[in-house]
Amino acid sequence: MTPMTYEPLPYRQLSRFCADVFARYGFTPDDSARITEILLCADLYGIESHGVQRLIRYHKEITGGFVNIDANPATVVDTPVSAVIDADRAMGQLISTQAMDVAIGKAKSSGIGMVAVRNSNHFGIAGFYAQMASDADLMGICMTNTEAIGVPTYGKKAMLGTNPIALAFPASPVNFLYDAATTVVPRGKIEVYSKNGQPLPEGWAVDVDGKASADADEILRNIIAKAGGGIAPLGGDTELYGGHKGYGLGIIVDLFCGVFSGGKTSNHQNLMPGSTDITHFFMAVDYGLFGGKEAIRENFSTFLQELRDSPRADGRQRIYTHGEKEQESRAQKLASGIPINAKTREEMHMIAAHQSLSYDDYFK
Amino acid sequence: MTPMTYEPLPYRQLSRFCADVFARYGFTPDDSARITEILLCADLYGIESHGVQRLIRYHKEITGGFVNIDANPATVVDTPVSAVIDADRAMGQLISTQAMDVAIGKAKSSGIGMVAVRNSNHFGIAGFYAQMASDADLMGICMTNTEAIGVPTYGKKAMLGTNPIALAFPASPVNFLYDAATTVVPRGKIEVYSKNGQPLPEGWAVDVDGKASADADEILRNIIAKAGGGIAPLGGDTELYGGHKGYGLGIIVDLFCGVFSGGKTSNHQNLMPGSTDITHFFMAVDYGLFGGKEAIRENFSTFLQELRDSPRADGRQRIYTHGEKEQESRAQKLASGIPINAKTREEMHMIAAHQSLSYDDYFK
Repeated sequence: MTPMTYEPLPYRQLSRFCADVFARYGFTPDDSARITEILLCADLYGIESHGVQRLIRYHKEITGGFVNIDANPATVVDTPVSAVIDADRAMGQLISTQAMDVAIGKAKSSGIGMVAVRNSNHFGIAGFYAQMASDADLMGICMTNTEAIGVPTYGKKAMLGTNPIALAFPASPVNFLYDAATTVVPRGKIEVYSKNGQPLPEGWAVDVDGKASADADEILRNIIAKAGGGIAPLGGDTELYGGHKGYGLGIIVDLFCGVFSGGKTSNHQNLMPGSTDITHFFMAVDYGLFGGKEAIRENFSTFLQELRDSPRADGRQRIYTHGEKEQESRAQKLASGIPINAKTREEMHMIAAHQSLSYDDYFK
Repeated sequence: MTPMTYEPLPYRQLSRFCADVFARYGFTPDDSARITEILLCADLYGIESHGVQRLIRYHKEITGGFVNIDANPATVVDTPVSAVIDADRAMGQLISTQAMDVAIGKAKSSGIGMVAVRNSNHFGIAGFYAQMASDADLMGICMTNTEAIGVPTYGKKAMLGTNPIALAFPASPVNFLYDAATTVVPRGKIEVYSKNGQPLPEGWAVDVDGKASADADEILRNIIAKAGGGIAPLGGDTELYGGHKGYGLGIIVDLFCGVFSGGKTSNHQNLMPGSTDITHFFMAVDYGLFGGKEAIRENFSTFLQELRDSPRADGRQRIYTHGEKEQESRAQKLASGIPINAKTREEMHMIAAHQSLSYDDYFK
């Protein structure tokens, strides 16, 4: 395939376009704006896989009835420090901001708040919700399971989602924001190698027999057809580089999400028509539970600075701490536009037509 | 070097030997038994690096004054859900069982308990403490920082410890027990390659210039001399396999341990004579906060069973879940003895002589 051509689209126009699209599905203006903010946050952070290129997936899930626009989420467990919410198949972004707000409220009154959510849908980037807590001067943690595409160590069937873990903590000059799949790479990375016709690095994925495979096209076909094989855990497809560690972290995410919510673990998702069954976990902690907040923030900021200032490997320009790349990408893209690839622009045209909107009214 | 020769020593005799050694340093019989139980738990689980082979290290730290036998730990922060304890350089195993007991007590009364500890020493395997909580039908989490031997992504100076994360959760037929360094391997693995004269797998470690190195001897020399280089994070020495993820997890462990305790982060440890400055974090959660405990335990047990029963990669005999290998190793070693290598037996002779004990009185 030919490499994709990108065109930068201004944030403001993209935002208006997406919000209008979501409003046409039947979401309120406020809800449409919130979904849009989270979607574009991924693009601004440079995480294209979770940005506007996913509009087509949301389009299919909303028009296909997976997402319940009139959802009535119910709180099924409620304690001073915890809650479990049944999302009633709400749009993931909407129930997730609500759930993190609940966790933040509990952290402010009880020191800590933990909220597990079941019967939800894709919620975008986990880091967004963790950051809601750090914006409130708390520690934020967020996890989600997803459809199974990750293979256990020495298995050959996908049993775990990409199952990301995000943690945000206030720091100067840049907040700490960790947000990473517990698989070695997310599915989007395999897609990029497929589009560019490149062989996969050994250890990223295994075929239907559980053998390491460099064939990106084959891996993707198998994932879509649920034919077997899939992506290796963080640490790779054997124990040599600690693949059993990533596998274990994936299990832990499913404990917090699938099990604590009383919902479904990764391996039981997307098996029933009209339901994705995704589960999430949100946690906020008042770190004043451990002493003076200012001192804690300063000590952590100092540690991060020491890491950034530590001697660089020969030939390397910079040591990052987590969250820096995202903030720099955001500033650059707010100024110069968000690069949108040709395929996504085509899908935006299609979605606009479907929703009786005109793409050209937004991007002239 | 020639490969080491192992001799199986019975658990009961090893236990008596170690307890008597610790008693001779001045610990009470109860404390000596507790330290011994945790030390031998590592050997029983098959984690030789943290077992009796570390007796020599504890010997040096205790006789060298790093460990304060008459420590008076002080609780410097105390809330219904959290505490911070200054260990006064106590033996790591003693302050850590106390700290996890505090966390368990808070979890029983408030649903959750989090305890950060500063000014401590090595505590053995993190999993032991996480398991104290799962033995009390709670979720247990434990982390610790250590002397810096891990290099940040694209750095060339060790700034992070092996910084393990452990999580234990009750399940049938075997409890879940995750316990893993956030570096790609612990230092002990490098030592094994060095002893066997094998080249290191590419990506495990970097040299003083931050370049990947397969020379185990050189890596160890540099670590000991603090000359530069060290062990790569989980995911390896570049971003290709997610090394930045392991690097971030290492930072998170130092946030919970070094920062929350008001103590020192990995990169500031072992720099002052007579003080190791290690910090820990302990957490217990009553998972009844999320619904009926029996249903949660059963749902998690079912998920673990589904993972174990999922199709195996060609040529592989078994898919494990975390904690199984440890329990099977324990049963086997309680029956057949703990294999102790020649060098460790030599060190045991030396320590016995130093403490006016006779090795042969225990192992005839």
